[in-house]
Amino acid sequence: MSSTAFFRSRWVERLPHVTELPGGGLPEGFRASGVAAGIKESGAPDVGLMVCDALEATSAARFTNSGTQAPPVLLCRERCRLDAVRAVVVNAGNANAATGRMGFENAAKMQGAGALVARVREDQVAVASTGVIGVPLPMGKVNKGIVAAAHALSADGDVAFSDAIQTTDAFEKRVRLSIELPSGTVKLSAQAKGAGMISPGFATLLCFVQTDALLSAETCDLLLGVCVKRSFERVSVDGQLSTNDMVLLQASGQSGVRIEPETEDELRFGEAIDALMRQLSLLVVADGEGARRVGRVVVHGGEPDAVDRVARAVANSPLVKTALYGGDPNWGRIVQAVGAAMPGTAPLAVDVLIEGVKVCAGSAQVSHDAEAVAEAVKRDEVEYEIFLPGEGAETEVYFSDLGHEYITINADYTT
Amino acid sequence: MSSTAFFRSRWVERLPHVTELPGGGLPEGFRASGVAAGIKESGAPDVGLMVCDALEATSAARFTNSGTQAPPVLLCRERCRLDAVRAVVVNAGNANAATGRMGFENAAKMQGAGALVARVREDQVAVASTGVIGVPLPMGKVNKGIVAAAHALSADGDVAFSDAIQTTDAFEKRVRLSIELPSGTVKLSAQAKGAGMISPGFATLLCFVQTDALLSAETCDLLLGVCVKRSFERVSVDGQLSTNDMVLLQASGQSGVRIEPETEDELRFGEAIDALMRQLSLLVVADGEGARRVGRVVVHGGEPDAVDRVARAVANSPLVKTALYGGDPNWGRIVQAVGAAMPGTAPLAVDVLIEGVKVCAGSAQVSHDAEAVAEAVKRDEVEYEIFLPGEGAETEVYFSDLGHEYITINADYTT
Repeated sequence: MSSTAFFRSRWVERLPHVTELPGGGLPEGFRASGVAAGIKESGAPDVGLMVCDALEATSAARFTNSGTQAPPVLLCRERCRLDAVRAVVVNAGNANAATGRMGFENAAKMQGAGALVARVREDQVAVASTGVIGVPLPMGKVNKGIVAAAHALSADGDVAFSDAIQTTDAFEKRVRLSIELPSGTVKLSAQAKGAGMISPGFATLLCFVQTDALLSAETCDLLLGVCVKRSFERVSVDGQLSTNDMVLLQASGQSGVRIEPETEDELRFGEAIDALMRQLSLLVVADGEGARRVGRVVVHGGEPDAVDRVARAVANSPLVKTALYGGDPNWGRIVQAVGAAMPGTAPLAVDVLIEGVKVCAGSAQVSHDAEAVAEAVKRDEVEYEIFLPGEGAETEVYFSDLGHEYITINADYTT
Repeated sequence: MSSTAFFRSRWVERLPHVTELPGGGLPEGFRASGVAAGIKESGAPDVGLMVCDALEATSAARFTNSGTQAPPVLLCRERCRLDAVRAVVVNAGNANAATGRMGFENAAKMQGAGALVARVREDQVAVASTGVIGVPLPMGKVNKGIVAAAHALSADGDVAFSDAIQTTDAFEKRVRLSIELPSGTVKLSAQAKGAGMISPGFATLLCFVQTDALLSAETCDLLLGVCVKRSFERVSVDGQLSTNDMVLLQASGQSGVRIEPETEDELRFGEAIDALMRQLSLLVVADGEGARRVGRVVVHGGEPDAVDRVARAVANSPLVKTALYGGDPNWGRIVQAVGAAMPGTAPLAVDVLIEGVKVCAGSAQVSHDAEAVAEAVKRDEVEYEIFLPGEGAETEVYFSDLGHEYITINADYTT
């Protein structure tokens, strides 16, 4: 594995002070595991446990903003010290969503079992579930899984943990980085899952990030908040906000390298988390339940609300997404999506560029090298740029195409 | 053809005073035609002409609210007496959208040619285009088509006209009705096209309605406005607002039956237009580019904005739509879509019924006859009912499923 295997997208900046590490292994102070508990019918691993052994661990978290948040999310928000999470218990194969009071009690039981096996306080245990909605958790299996996971904990258990949190994912979204800071070297690791029910705005799927850097809970929260906004909140597979999304950053402090606010250390460390989360979010888009290509839409204009609305409308348009799937430079559909996001403004002057080639100016077609554009949209990553009237506002959204595999997966993926 | 062939959906009320008429034939005072002008590569009919010979014709129209309205829409709004439209020129195969000033001039030329051949004033001619976006209209072909269409005008030209306005439609959306009113018998005919780029809200696709009833322009406008809100504004194929949508109602008055405001005549006539447009809009959904099933989502709650937002979120959710395609009673995805439409309200209590069976109460699963529900969602029409907190607000949206055919059509349908 080369040092740039993880940073495979041209949209993620290469950082000279960041090196990817091969294989498995968590930062100092962490142990993890993943076991098969029989929740998934396939028999694949489905219970993961992540434990931070440092007494003074710090953390920060973000959750889905859905009105129908699943019990594990409600539990984390209500009964967790989110600035001091020591352990995380995750199950896949069942989202424990739309399960009511019993679902909340089951999430509480998972938290209790996690506290027991990790030997930490209950409010230091976060819980997460992912999978089918509306089916009660099989608690017997979950509990046995948690006990087995506790026995399997190891310093290189991130690989098994990563396996255990996946559902319809086609490939692993796991990374280990070494970061050179002025004050010393720290490590970052992360495991994410997500392929469908991924939406821009609030969206976070499941992503767990660990570091042995020494951070205050405030710094954890600040860095996570900024990076989520630039990564998971800017991607879309199908415009669907999940009931269970969660991103968690945990810091063990075991490297002894302290990240003080407003220092070069913080800047460089932040850059690394930013790159890591951007690349992970792009991997989620690339895995977008059968996706073939990833698109990036950049929108410029005078009003922040308008550029955001337009970017999301283009990213979520099934017509734009099917054209991307077909490798079809059908920019008329982009104009359509822009117009739909800006009702009542006709005639609106819109410029559209595909891979730097202007195909539409002032909402009208312009002559261009159609063959070059047709060639460009058949690549793995396709960039669209849109100019609305005005200046000063800009945003981007990354999105997957929409193809037959999405239909196959979602027409058959069961209740 | 039986008298209920058109009113095939259980969601359109049967009206004892309305009878469907077989075959073709326009109400008194109208002639129409459709010809192949070579705009469509397939060689299928692509220019339609509808002429009302009554000097005192009245009319009303509604258009897409897109910010990137196509030149024919802009032209109709700016240069048409929309309350007195005598002729309509339509081409399919090219939307004349995103074509800028030249597109506007071409729309004006279509209007001019229509006026010439129909022998009416230019501002009495409406123009409409549908098809590919961003390609200049081949005006030589269009003009030849208009001339040929003028020669082909006939009182039963509605069949050919209906053919000429279609694009990706899999079947005809045309109807002829006879309506018994207290003051006499009148006729209604309509031709619609639409299968993709169909969105709730503003959406209207192309639909032309003719009657020989005698209506003031104000009554035309009132009836059309009310009926559009209950039909084309409540359907979704793919949540995509078109650049070219238009609904036009024309009245020749040739039956001599006058529809006075606030009379039994107006009520019954309104019921007939309402049923006609609801059934046409349902046919558009059923034709939803490869659709297999049509869903209806009814949302109840305390706030009109919230019930509308939730209904559209469910109707446009690719996860709900693929489940409908798969005949899968995956109500968890409905809960997900509801939560996404109501961010920041967790925990939100939601009830969900499928075909009258309660599957979720207070956002938690309830035991139910899963086999009966699984059987019900495999039928042609599936009804979902959602209860949000509160009372007094209710709305509905009709939607198509999302299947492989949509992908095939839209990944290959070309620029």
